[in-house]
Amino acid sequence: MSILVVGSVAFDALQTPFGKIDRCLGGSATYFSVAASYFTEVELVAVVGEDFTDEDARIFEGRKINLDSLQRVAGAKTFFWSGEYGYDLNVAKTRDTQLNVFADFKPQLNDRQRHPDVLFLANIDPDLQYEVLQQTERPRLVALDTMNYWISSKRDSLERIFGAVDLIIINEAEVRQFTKEANLVKACRQILDLGAQTLVVKRGEYGVLMITKDAIFAAPAYPLENVFDPTGAGDTFAGGVLGYLASRAEVHDRELRRAIIFGSVLASFTVEKFSLDRLREISLRDIHERYQDFRALTHFDDFGAD
Amino acid sequence: MSILVVGSVAFDALQTPFGKIDRCLGGSATYFSVAASYFTEVELVAVVGEDFTDEDARIFEGRKINLDSLQRVAGAKTFFWSGEYGYDLNVAKTRDTQLNVFADFKPQLNDRQRHPDVLFLANIDPDLQYEVLQQTERPRLVALDTMNYWISSKRDSLERIFGAVDLIIINEAEVRQFTKEANLVKACRQILDLGAQTLVVKRGEYGVLMITKDAIFAAPAYPLENVFDPTGAGDTFAGGVLGYLASRAEVHDRELRRAIIFGSVLASFTVEKFSLDRLREISLRDIHERYQDFRALTHFDDFGAD
Repeated sequence: MSILVVGSVAFDALQTPFGKIDRCLGGSATYFSVAASYFTEVELVAVVGEDFTDEDARIFEGRKINLDSLQRVAGAKTFFWSGEYGYDLNVAKTRDTQLNVFADFKPQLNDRQRHPDVLFLANIDPDLQYEVLQQTERPRLVALDTMNYWISSKRDSLERIFGAVDLIIINEAEVRQFTKEANLVKACRQILDLGAQTLVVKRGEYGVLMITKDAIFAAPAYPLENVFDPTGAGDTFAGGVLGYLASRAEVHDRELRRAIIFGSVLASFTVEKFSLDRLREISLRDIHERYQDFRALTHFDDFGAD
Repeated sequence: MSILVVGSVAFDALQTPFGKIDRCLGGSATYFSVAASYFTEVELVAVVGEDFTDEDARIFEGRKINLDSLQRVAGAKTFFWSGEYGYDLNVAKTRDTQLNVFADFKPQLNDRQRHPDVLFLANIDPDLQYEVLQQTERPRLVALDTMNYWISSKRDSLERIFGAVDLIIINEAEVRQFTKEANLVKACRQILDLGAQTLVVKRGEYGVLMITKDAIFAAPAYPLENVFDPTGAGDTFAGGVLGYLASRAEVHDRELRRAIIFGSVLASFTVEKFSLDRLREISLRDIHERYQDFRALTHFDDFGAD
């Protein structure tokens, strides 16, 4: 089982109330790949500039991440994002975005890549997401992430790709923005009516709500006393969810619930340090222990049990 | 096992996007008592005016609610609140508050009431809460609710009563307002340091977080497609929590978790109709069925289970 991810590899400059860093690794596909690689083989399709060094590429080393399609463009610079967080850490304020090599990113899958088991379309232009999907023989599972920018600028394209995938990962505010419906459950059902089987709604510090045609699952976020840098939490979450699902034979309700907890576990590690500093150092044992912590956090028994 | 509640019985005028009502029953102690009475005997200490009719009092009939100390003041009017909600339903806009008989409310417990098993101090002046507590022989369990108004106007009094009770029920925004700490877990620990054993944080549509010295428990809210009127949800929740706890021999982690789910179940019914219209018509069977729905909503299994 393996997963193909198309998205961004980037450099970030970050400022949080707890520190400041001028250049660190970032990008949706970076967080996603490292997270997913704890569970499955990952093939990364992305583009970087010549400022992306072998030292930078070490983040992917020693993991099951295939970099054959991490394209390096000579004479150009890597996608750069600069952001700032206040004390509540829920909203990033973008200070600067330089698309650089990412502006002309037109992923071309090779023959091998046209048959992925699982495909994840990270947050890029929904027209590009659709083009990538069209290049594949229909994978077993196709999922995507998106952002508010595409809802306001490319609504029709988003509607098309929403109807063409199996699983949508999206922020709560984006669900309401897309549907103009205040009630979250109703809004989710409207999106599911476009065609996907599963909607996974990210609610930041409040956790995740998963809605399918038959069931609803609510998972809290891990209540951390020290959140250092929320950058990449959503991409890490997606990596955990899809990585786990790619490692399993079937995608049904029970596996989806476990996947959401694994995604939440990984995201809870990511925010403990800057960039991927914490995510890259954890072990499977750490992941499994925190999965058990989530069980303790949410467990209540049947009232008829005594 | 029984519970003594001191709080308000009121008339409300409500406007939501789904309807409008000029006069209906409300008040923290009203919602609390009806909710708690599904589990235990309730003794209600409150005051109303002569406009509170026998027809109004029917809400308490046929339930295990003792009204001996529901004082009716001749020539005076019942506490009145008028509020309005927009489509997001999370924030009530107060249009009018008339304290009326509630302005001079000085609860005096009789001999029998001085020995309650469980005492709930609904959202009233923290000095009044303290005076009521002083009138009792230390009950097995003392809990309170409060509001942002007392945090800004009577901070010292609130600090005193926080240190004198076992269980505090409070909104998330109020935790941050009281502590001036953005991280919720840290903020909760600061409040627990004042003396209480258990802090139950209400997060509206995001559910509840319970923090004790030894454990954290997160419960989602029930994802309703139709929320009609959120008035009284918090008081109903408190009634379910304390009513269930009053019915049990011990207050430990397992019972607290069940209590929070029962509180969430009852609150999810309250918001389905105006005022107490839905809460008053449900059966224990309805409550138990929705408890099971909460289990289905939150359940995920151990990943080692297959």
